[in-house]
Amino acid sequence: MNTIQKLLSEHRSVRKFEQTALDAAEVEAAVAAAQQAATSSNVQPYCLIQVHEPGSRERLAQASGGQTQVAEAGAFFVVCADQRRFRQIAADRGVPYEANLESFLVGVVDASLFAQNLVIAFESEGYGTCYIGGLRTALSEVTEILELPPDVFPLFGLCVGVPAEDPGPRPRLATSAVLFHERCPDEEALREQIAEYDARMATYYEGRGLAGHTWSGGVQRKFMKPQRTDLAEYYTSQGARLA
Amino acid sequence: MNTIQKLLSEHRSVRKFEQTALDAAEVEAAVAAAQQAATSSNVQPYCLIQVHEPGSRERLAQASGGQTQVAEAGAFFVVCADQRRFRQIAADRGVPYEANLESFLVGVVDASLFAQNLVIAFESEGYGTCYIGGLRTALSEVTEILELPPDVFPLFGLCVGVPAEDPGPRPRLATSAVLFHERCPDEEALREQIAEYDARMATYYEGRGLAGHTWSGGVQRKFMKPQRTDLAEYYTSQGARLA
Repeated sequence: MNTIQKLLSEHRSVRKFEQTALDAAEVEAAVAAAQQAATSSNVQPYCLIQVHEPGSRERLAQASGGQTQVAEAGAFFVVCADQRRFRQIAADRGVPYEANLESFLVGVVDASLFAQNLVIAFESEGYGTCYIGGLRTALSEVTEILELPPDVFPLFGLCVGVPAEDPGPRPRLATSAVLFHERCPDEEALREQIAEYDARMATYYEGRGLAGHTWSGGVQRKFMKPQRTDLAEYYTSQGARLA
Repeated sequence: MNTIQKLLSEHRSVRKFEQTALDAAEVEAAVAAAQQAATSSNVQPYCLIQVHEPGSRERLAQASGGQTQVAEAGAFFVVCADQRRFRQIAADRGVPYEANLESFLVGVVDASLFAQNLVIAFESEGYGTCYIGGLRTALSEVTEILELPPDVFPLFGLCVGVPAEDPGPRPRLATSAVLFHERCPDEEALREQIAEYDARMATYYEGRGLAGHTWSGGVQRKFMKPQRTDLAEYYTSQGARLA
């Protein structure tokens, strides 16, 4: 394993940060490196909004489910799919711009590739990071606070800062449960993979004072009820088409 | 800029490869490192299918728009969002599994974060890579060839191999056109950012024998007609919900 693969392998989400703001030049360097991530036909359908204002960050922290690191991290960003440039180009040339599920997906995928590059760029400098999927609970606050124009679709938040904790990496599914050859596993193999991971994670949870907790139990509870049921309406109102 | 940011900055998509197959152990090591990418509540809603069979890869190359690297690269993978594990857990426990746009998005985002980690893991070993978004033109072939079960959603392909070309990195939008502070730019600033990039890219295209080509012209043509209009129907038929 080379040093870069070692960095990837040691990723852990950090939720407690020192109150040290990130240097603007350091942020710009990380973003510039991250922008080189692959993007469909070089369209670059994303933007990154850094939120500085303490009151805004406090509101977003509360609205994201009380995740205090949104207010406390050295920097907080909102990662967005962004089709404003495309709409503007089409308008200025007097031709149609046709949004659909494909263009929305290209936005979500390319914004995510860029964001993961950004995470690596920051972690390579010793910073800790934490994605905030809970931002999708706070889309109306995000839209209001950042005065988002149409065609900008906030996807998730990203906290970056000097770590004030080290939770250690969390074990993942066996590689053989993720990497398949030619065909997906059958139902029996799938059950075995889940059982193997549950057994391995039991030890992990126990070591964190969560004896009795299981991975599959967590998954079951997460997906038993539909979550964030307003997303389709929200993204459509912002100018996306999901058909 | 540290060595890792330098690696990110030097990314270029490689489309011509030496015919050297990747070693299985090397693939597993890269996947294992990539799996440590952040994932919402540790659900890991993705899988990676390596396609080895030459006839299948030839068919996928043709169906993806004649992208011969799909057949020729040292390894070819299909990156999928995958909710089979969750559906299985719910079925085995006799509770509902509720798919919706949120769970689909979590799958797309987390599969993309994982894929980008995987690209970095391979590039850190000197391999070249190329995402194949054109796979979404070939979803019926992918489904048939890989006999995809329900709840597996192919998103894009990934070619990896020993580069047989060096196209060099492609310049990106100015960092100030992607990284915003507090607010998105107004329409005038947006137009200036597009014009600045068009001017810079003109030189790039000229150097590649594409004088007269513009970035905004390419964008305009790409989005003038809706592309891949069957995606919503396809993903829904595989078990996704986009509402």
